[in-house]
Amino acid sequence: MAVLSPSRTDFRYLQLSRSIEQQIRDGVWKCGDKLPSVRSLCREQGISMSTVLQAYLELEKKALIESRPQSGYYVSYWHRQLPPVPGASQPSALSEVSEPDDMIRKVYSQLGREGLVPLSLSVPCDALLPVAKLNKAMIAAMRELPGSGTGYEEVQGYRPLRRQVARWSLSWQGHLNEEDIVTTAGCMNALSLSLMTLTRAGDTIAVESPVYFGILQLARSLGLHVLELPTHPQTGVEPDALRAAVKGGKVKVCLLVPNFNNPLGSCMPDAHKKEVVEILEYYGVPLIEDDLYGDVYFGDARPRSCKSYDESGNVLWCGSVSKTLAPGYRVGWVAPGRHKEALIRLKHYHSIASATLPQAVIASFLENGRYEHHLRRLRSTLQANAFQFIRAVSRYFPEGTRVSRPQGGFVLWVELDPRVQTASLYDAAIRQGISITPGRMFTLQQQYHHCMRLSYGHIWNAELDNTLKRLGRLVHLELGA
Amino acid sequence: MAVLSPSRTDFRYLQLSRSIEQQIRDGVWKCGDKLPSVRSLCREQGISMSTVLQAYLELEKKALIESRPQSGYYVSYWHRQLPPVPGASQPSALSEVSEPDDMIRKVYSQLGREGLVPLSLSVPCDALLPVAKLNKAMIAAMRELPGSGTGYEEVQGYRPLRRQVARWSLSWQGHLNEEDIVTTAGCMNALSLSLMTLTRAGDTIAVESPVYFGILQLARSLGLHVLELPTHPQTGVEPDALRAAVKGGKVKVCLLVPNFNNPLGSCMPDAHKKEVVEILEYYGVPLIEDDLYGDVYFGDARPRSCKSYDESGNVLWCGSVSKTLAPGYRVGWVAPGRHKEALIRLKHYHSIASATLPQAVIASFLENGRYEHHLRRLRSTLQANAFQFIRAVSRYFPEGTRVSRPQGGFVLWVELDPRVQTASLYDAAIRQGISITPGRMFTLQQQYHHCMRLSYGHIWNAELDNTLKRLGRLVHLELGA
Repeated sequence: MAVLSPSRTDFRYLQLSRSIEQQIRDGVWKCGDKLPSVRSLCREQGISMSTVLQAYLELEKKALIESRPQSGYYVSYWHRQLPPVPGASQPSALSEVSEPDDMIRKVYSQLGREGLVPLSLSVPCDALLPVAKLNKAMIAAMRELPGSGTGYEEVQGYRPLRRQVARWSLSWQGHLNEEDIVTTAGCMNALSLSLMTLTRAGDTIAVESPVYFGILQLARSLGLHVLELPTHPQTGVEPDALRAAVKGGKVKVCLLVPNFNNPLGSCMPDAHKKEVVEILEYYGVPLIEDDLYGDVYFGDARPRSCKSYDESGNVLWCGSVSKTLAPGYRVGWVAPGRHKEALIRLKHYHSIASATLPQAVIASFLENGRYEHHLRRLRSTLQANAFQFIRAVSRYFPEGTRVSRPQGGFVLWVELDPRVQTASLYDAAIRQGISITPGRMFTLQQQYHHCMRLSYGHIWNAELDNTLKRLGRLVHLELGA
Repeated sequence: MAVLSPSRTDFRYLQLSRSIEQQIRDGVWKCGDKLPSVRSLCREQGISMSTVLQAYLELEKKALIESRPQSGYYVSYWHRQLPPVPGASQPSALSEVSEPDDMIRKVYSQLGREGLVPLSLSVPCDALLPVAKLNKAMIAAMRELPGSGTGYEEVQGYRPLRRQVARWSLSWQGHLNEEDIVTTAGCMNALSLSLMTLTRAGDTIAVESPVYFGILQLARSLGLHVLELPTHPQTGVEPDALRAAVKGGKVKVCLLVPNFNNPLGSCMPDAHKKEVVEILEYYGVPLIEDDLYGDVYFGDARPRSCKSYDESGNVLWCGSVSKTLAPGYRVGWVAPGRHKEALIRLKHYHSIASATLPQAVIASFLENGRYEHHLRRLRSTLQANAFQFIRAVSRYFPEGTRVSRPQGGFVLWVELDPRVQTASLYDAAIRQGISITPGRMFTLQQQYHHCMRLSYGHIWNAELDNTLKRLGRLVHLELGA
């Protein structure tokens, strides 16, 4: 049904990175060797600086090389292979529901502990946020807004913010305008409004598996049944599995996180996105697309959204800046397609309007290129962190550990030896001041007991390396090694 | 069942005001006469300044006297009686549902019109808000909060705000502490969370009648049935009517606005509040108390809330500063009693947390006495406005018009000759740039067609007087006079 988009393997930088990778694996370059400088490779190969940089970035992402500031690129590939990637999940279609609420509550109740290393929080730490610039924008907003933003805003949302979000949609090949957007109190609120618009208690929604536990809790609080779909840690939900699930007519709504899914870090290929949109359109099942992490990509460009393939208004595209600028501002949005009027009414009934000032601050941030500027730094920090985390897991965790290769976002999915129970690993870790997220939190079924999610939205340093070392030791202990 | 609290008629200032009222009605004092100065009355009667002032305030509220700045108090009672107060409402228990949504949408769609006099908006106009002081508090909050408030706040809400709201509860004889409070995105969001915590689609809730249309829309969006209770424009819902309604066991939740109900302006007497709490406790029906307007009283003290009589945690007390400080901040709260844990969970699932900075600003406002200072001015402005509006209606509207006597809040309920349809009056008024709220919006039944709500949350001036004059002329025209 779907037509494949032109393969990315045609890009020059990918050809280059593949050649160098082969040489590294063949031992032409050895661990510690310095690679040719970007400038010299440009000249040699007759290609642009950015192509070389992108090729090196690709290799860095694969943990084959590393950049040392003021020095250059070095081979970091060593005798031991990086851990393999987990396989696609196999949730059951008929499993009994078993809520992970007690575990979730336990993990949350500990988060306020002094000195805790919160590897369980999938948000950027304070140090990664542009606080001073946001403050400046807040003062400007108070000066410029009528009544300094004390008055009620339009129900649909602050118009300049809607305009900026619409403009920003160009980055994922969207073609929205300000009338398409409704602002919300963060992305969860966008998901909540979308689900409340489309479903009633007793309906079934289809989601990825593992899936962010907040989505499970939201769905259950609305009395919804949840169908978990097989999901691949690199490519996300399989279109065929989705088709099989919606064919029966029982699925009322599909809710997916196609870009840098939490907790897998997977990114659905464009061809899959297109196919998913076509399938859901065909079967008349609306798609709620949670694109919260899309701006935090490690590749060469922002991935497209499913919404960019949506021609009928069947996709409700949700986003926010809670993961990139200011979680505490509670600014998010949804482009609800043909469900716009119903969703605006619901927003009005349940909260009248969104807070004015935070919306104005985010609008000005998007407008002046400050957002893109900030993202560039955030992305490269997170990409390096992901690499460090994967390497640390490879070093400190037992053989047989599998780790996702996030292509963006904040989190790593780690699959341990099936004998390790991450619920009990959690207890051991919290005693050492480390908070992890047990895999069982990401499903309503009895699965992922031996998995966990680690957030790398922190500043990398020796202490963090040591934290992962201690965590690895605990895993060894759980295995009785 | 209920024991009457000591009658207010014992207060000295009320005795004084009654004596003067009698003299005015008896013609001892005539329209335009200057009353004794506050100081001289003090001396004569051997009472305190504040007692005299309160007595004069009482008379002012009844439109018997008026204060002229720098001059004193003058009798303003004139040959024509003030219009009578409407009787208690008589909604049917068995009426078919008829949604007023189209009319509500029509009224809202016109609100953005340039130059409109929005007598349909029950909020204070910008000029009545302490904008500069709020801005100052915002800058201080950015300086003082960790991460300048960019981080996620506790789900239950910003602790200093919860503490201040708890302290403030002393003003209505509450005894809350910071653990009792959950912050929300405004009062409607508090009502929404409360209803979602307590009900499922198909349940029935009992409300006042007429009732704020937003409550009807919220309830309908959750699939709830609405039972409208007979309500008196001065004392609110009759406890006996409530008892009869909940006796049957069909009412799942009761949602009332006991203080300065919108649209009636009624204030339930303490004895009724106590009785209502006892009835609902006895029948196991939770009470959601919307106390949004409680701080905007025209009397000598803030009225108590039903919550102040609640010993078992059966009352969910909701409030906000949307009507007093900053609608656009979206800061509200609920003290959910024994339903706290369930409500916090729901808040978490649907919106993660509330925006941090606006909560911090409101907390500091409450803490430093700036709120009380602001309220004093706001109350006296609104009380004077209410008086001016009632007098204008009395002057310009046809004989037979009835008007509520709000004891606080922002709105007037006007009952016209039954031959006047306020839906068509709305059309005529909007053509003249005046927006009113037709009575039909405040019910799901076929009633209040000849009623309307007028908001006096504006700065009073000759233009506004003229607006009411023009409106009165339109009513005359509708009557064919």
